Amino acid sequence: MMIVMKAEASEAEIAAVVRRVESVGCSAHVSQGDVLTVIGAIGDRDKVGGLGLEGAAGVDHVVPIQKPYKLASSQFRKGERSILEIGGRKIGGENFALIAGPCTVESVEQTMEVARTVSEAGVTMFRGGAYKPRTSPYSFQGLGQEGLRILQQAKDETGLPIVTEVMDVRDIEDAAEVADVIQIGARNMQNYTLLTEVGRSGCAALLKRGLSATLEELLMASEYILKEGNENVMLCERGIRTFETGYRFTLDLMAVPALKALTHLPVIIDPSHAAGRRDWVEPLSLAAAAVGADGIIVEVHNDPENAICDGPQQLASESFASYADRLERVAEIAGKAVSRV
Amino acid sequence: MMIVMKAEASEAEIAAVVRRVESVGCSAHVSQGDVLTVIGAIGDRDKVGGLGLEGAAGVDHVVPIQKPYKLASSQFRKGERSILEIGGRKIGGENFALIAGPCTVESVEQTMEVARTVSEAGVTMFRGGAYKPRTSPYSFQGLGQEGLRILQQAKDETGLPIVTEVMDVRDIEDAAEVADVIQIGARNMQNYTLLTEVGRSGCAALLKRGLSATLEELLMASEYILKEGNENVMLCERGIRTFETGYRFTLDLMAVPALKALTHLPVIIDPSHAAGRRDWVEPLSLAAAAVGADGIIVEVHNDPENAICDGPQQLASESFASYADRLERVAEIAGKAVSRV
Amino acid sequence: MMIVMKAEASEAEIAAVVRRVESVGCSAHVSQGDVLTVIGAIGDRDKVGGLGLEGAAGVDHVVPIQKPYKLASSQFRKGERSILEIGGRKIGGENFALIAGPCTVESVEQTMEVARTVSEAGVTMFRGGAYKPRTSPYSFQGLGQEGLRILQQAKDETGLPIVTEVMDVRDIEDAAEVADVIQIGARNMQNYTLLTEVGRSGCAALLKRGLSATLEELLMASEYILKEGNENVMLCERGIRTFETGYRFTLDLMAVPALKALTHLPVIIDPSHAAGRRDWVEPLSLAAAAVGADGIIVEVHNDPENAICDGPQQLASESFASYADRLERVAEIAGKAVSRV
Amino acid sequence: MMIVMKAEASEAEIAAVVRRVESVGCSAHVSQGDVLTVIGAIGDRDKVGGLGLEGAAGVDHVVPIQKPYKLASSQFRKGERSILEIGGRKIGGENFALIAGPCTVESVEQTMEVARTVSEAGVTMFRGGAYKPRTSPYSFQGLGQEGLRILQQAKDETGLPIVTEVMDVRDIEDAAEVADVIQIGARNMQNYTLLTEVGRSGCAALLKRGLSATLEELLMASEYILKEGNENVMLCERGIRTFETGYRFTLDLMAVPALKALTHLPVIIDPSHAAGRRDWVEPLSLAAAAVGADGIIVEVHNDPENAICDGPQQLASESFASYADRLERVAEIAGKAVSRV
Repeated sequence: MMIVMKAEASEAEIAAVVRRVESVGCSAHVSQGDVLTVIGAIGDRDKVGGLGLEGAAGVDHVVPIQKPYKLASSQFRKGERSILEIGGRKIGGENFALIAGPCTVESVEQTMEVARTVSEAGVTMFRGGAYKPRTSPYSFQGLGQEGLRILQQAKDETGLPIVTEVMDVRDIEDAAEVADVIQIGARNMQNYTLLTEVGRSGCAALLKRGLSATLEELLMASEYILKEGNENVMLCERGIRTFETGYRFTLDLMAVPALKALTHLPVIIDPSHAAGRRDWVEPLSLAAAAVGADGIIVEVHNDPENAICDGPQQLASESFASYADRLERVAEIAGKAVSRV
Repeated sequence: MMIVMKAEASEAEIAAVVRRVESVGCSAHVSQGDVLTVIGAIGDRDKVGGLGLEGAAGVDHVVPIQKPYKLASSQFRKGERSILEIGGRKIGGENFALIAGPCTVESVEQTMEVARTVSEAGVTMFRGGAYKPRTSPYSFQGLGQEGLRILQQAKDETGLPIVTEVMDVRDIEDAAEVADVIQIGARNMQNYTLLTEVGRSGCAALLKRGLSATLEELLMASEYILKEGNENVMLCERGIRTFETGYRFTLDLMAVPALKALTHLPVIIDPSHAAGRRDWVEPLSLAAAAVGADGIIVEVHNDPENAICDGPQQLASESFASYADRLERVAEIAGKAVSRV
Repeated sequence: MMIVMKAEASEAEIAAVVRRVESVGCSAHVSQGDVLTVIGAIGDRDKVGGLGLEGAAGVDHVVPIQKPYKLASSQFRKGERSILEIGGRKIGGENFALIAGPCTVESVEQTMEVARTVSEAGVTMFRGGAYKPRTSPYSFQGLGQEGLRILQQAKDETGLPIVTEVMDVRDIEDAAEVADVIQIGARNMQNYTLLTEVGRSGCAALLKRGLSATLEELLMASEYILKEGNENVMLCERGIRTFETGYRFTLDLMAVPALKALTHLPVIIDPSHAAGRRDWVEPLSLAAAAVGADGIIVEVHNDPENAICDGPQQLASESFASYADRLERVAEIAGKAVSRV
Repeated sequence: MMIVMKAEASEAEIAAVVRRVESVGCSAHVSQGDVLTVIGAIGDRDKVGGLGLEGAAGVDHVVPIQKPYKLASSQFRKGERSILEIGGRKIGGENFALIAGPCTVESVEQTMEVARTVSEAGVTMFRGGAYKPRTSPYSFQGLGQEGLRILQQAKDETGLPIVTEVMDVRDIEDAAEVADVIQIGARNMQNYTLLTEVGRSGCAALLKRGLSATLEELLMASEYILKEGNENVMLCERGIRTFETGYRFTLDLMAVPALKALTHLPVIIDPSHAAGRRDWVEPLSLAAAAVGADGIIVEVHNDPENAICDGPQQLASESFASYADRLERVAEIAGKAVSRV
């Protein structure tokens, strides 16, 4: 932490800050400039942060210098990237994860048909929602355990690892029997109870960035999972909230190079939710591959016009193979190959 | 819903949309303008929304006309405001709820001392955190059940109703034995599991607006509680996220008149978290009273310099009485009196 | 500036940064922590900033410590507040500026009628637009010079100082003959040519914060005026852009205490544009007075239903006197009295 | 326009709205639903908008149906894309404009060296700043007319068309003698005076999106240029302002498919300003090509470490050719070829 003193701060105020920094076992380096005095507090960031020096006499502001996350930081792996291994597929590094499937598990027929389509196109994993977070309590909330059983069937037939969302800590155990990856949705990114329990479950996690979460907060949320000893964490950017009303969310592709500078964890892009319309999903997917993402999680439906939810943004099964092909070509230019067994 | 067709939409495309609207039991009114054709879909918004017409041939865009929330809407109470009654105190209408207490329950001594101070100043309810949502897993997470016991002690001595936050559905039962109001934090505003279970608990709820939640989403979240038959819901604005880096959050006081136009539920302002510094809490509190809020939830500490968390933003006990006095004078001009037994 | 080095930065990289800092005449203080090395660059911020050290080898990031504005800073006046004197009225300190008038000068009759109403209610200054910035080139762009003549007539009759907006540097000379204060609109906040020329005109300026401008940028913009030797600058918050679609802009009342901590310049609130509807203007005005603003600039029309522009947000003349009365009562609690001759 | 009436609106209030719509020569279609009445106002959007019906008795809200821009709209060209021709180079359609050059014209040597580098790499146009908009009045403001002369020299030697920014209407004439394209910066996007005068100059324009401008506002701004009879307008996305502090701006690549749906004008991406660091410029450039942009405007410097401004974000000359090569390969997958004579 750097504590920047006010121009008019007295010697006594400076000395008092130094004393408080030292009182928690940190050391204080005083730099006296022409205009301002700056005190560098060297030691445990949390302890200095806990002092609440922002309100102390003579203090102008406090600037954090070190990152607050540890296990997620690039430094923790000394600059090496994490490569996860899930159901025999590698995620991260030069591997591009193509994760596809329906928004919602609606029926055996629909799920199996989409599963076969994406499996033939050579995807990395299969996604499908059994528990659906819905803005309205009056909307369809997912098939629940019945949905999990259908996902198991898809897994049995195609051999694809399964990604599915959980919202309630009481559902983790059931979900983890079927799922290879538990998805934590954007609205639950700071549901610390859920993060901790997913961490303890040992199941790999795909953690979506909250609608207005900074990258630092996303990494702090991942830290809740990592600190339980669960190293299989993927981060996912799915669109943030801005003033623009022309689309549902603004897909923040700058998060990819930025996260790569901050963390060793793989970064996945969800191009479906931000766009909200099918014809924008392919250009955004290609852009995600070009910007260096470690993968895509995309919604596909065998009959989007009659999908129970989010139909307009789901790719149609029949166009999926050619979409996947173009995506693979761009990923190659960015130095990656689609991950398969 | 109004379905706005593209200028170049064909007769067949228009007819197809009309057919789909009618297929879910709604009626379609076609308005043919000089440039555009607009189809009004009259009936259940959710059914028409489920059709996913945004992606249909010839459709330019779809404009929702009706509000998606029902129980929370002003219309549900025909324009009359809800007046809750909690522990003998009225909330809403001409009653101004002054809710005060420490950010975190740290010890018996600290809690009781603050409780006595705010009780003497005539507050409406006492607040204090036993379970603390923290950005960092390495920060103090609250005293938990021990904290609840201390709150019970404060309630026993002062007679003040208790407001405390819950994050984990598994803690609701314990909390509800002590608390008169369960607070749902901003980061859990769309934790639908938690909302539903708090709704079922029967305990009154104080629901904080998410950091980037629209007012419509806040009302939809309240709908999750209301639909369980729990009518005792207060909404709380506590600062939203913007591009400004000069403060932690931007307190959105426009939410007060705006929510009053949309809902019958009381609207409370939390001036402490946005500011993050003590000297801004009073001006923001006065502004909240002036803009017509139904109350304030504010952090007070007997020794802010040594508070375990958020010390810099907590008002000091010794200045609380005169603060409450000025607040009351402004509330009076806005037509309200502090609610007491 | 503090230059934070990467954990893995070498001794040579640290030495190179020190050399570059010293090469522009600044001194460098190196603080070696357990994890990170931080280099404090003491001296001219602009010179160090010009080095572009963010890109240098071994550098993690650069943290500015000093404020980039000078003349506008609180420190420049050693914590004393500026009190402007315009047409015999004091602005700032314990004086509350009530500035009122129509959005647009539409006709002699309309302008004179509103001028008489607000003059009788004892306002501080009269506002009215002759040049109107419009999002659409097809909208009414103002009466121009004819509008200025009408404003002169209002000034002659009421004796009130005039506030009017200029957008084109070529109109400053004409406007300054009539106006006591030239308003610079939010969309021109970073029109540096206009700022400089208004600075040179010697006419007082009311500078509106841009729709997504930080407070630091607002102060930097004011610096463009101040550096021309023009000290009569008022800052104005008029609503910022956020994700919320329930109102046109989000009025940021936190800007008032925040600006008071940063600058000696008076801070005015415009409650009309953010709300966009008349019934929200009064609560927002009262909140502005309560939060400590140095004044209000508000739109009033004698016949809002038939106003050429922004009718729905203009207060009606007949309700203005009682509005002004309530506003004055709240301002008093905040320690201010409406400024009059 | 659709005027949505309140649930409790009376017959008389509905009739009054119909009368007012008809009073400006538009027709009103009334749709009576179970809950709400909606009035469709068919005719000139501006006239109905001018009525200010948002404030009228019984009106809940007003929903615009038609786009407010005309000449810029896709419909104006019946879905065909504009292909500009500037200095013999085609912009738009299947042509990818690669525009490169230094942030600022610093000297003859620096400018000519960069011009030769990018010319050899086969760029479409050369960019360089003579007039620099700077947040601080104390920063270098550009070489002005001397800078224009240096740009002329670069044009003479390389034959490349020139793109340069103008901020002051009084500089347009000089700039237009050298420039093939006048750039209007983000902070001037709503400087209507400047837009109109650039429109009248007849010189092609590259219009940057404001930091918090919606796409609709960007198109409205372009309309100011187009309505003067100047059809050579390119739009440019350069990063918007969000809550994220990890980068200077958030590059909004969704604007590309979104603008393609709304307008026939070419869309260019500026990847340099948002990133603010060189190593992010290439991934963002590739993403821009992949998402379907019509071109890139990128900063290149022969000695970025010693650049007068924005050094850290400028690509180094020596790496430019290989960068351009990779960019071209991605553009090809998106169906475009770099535009050259």
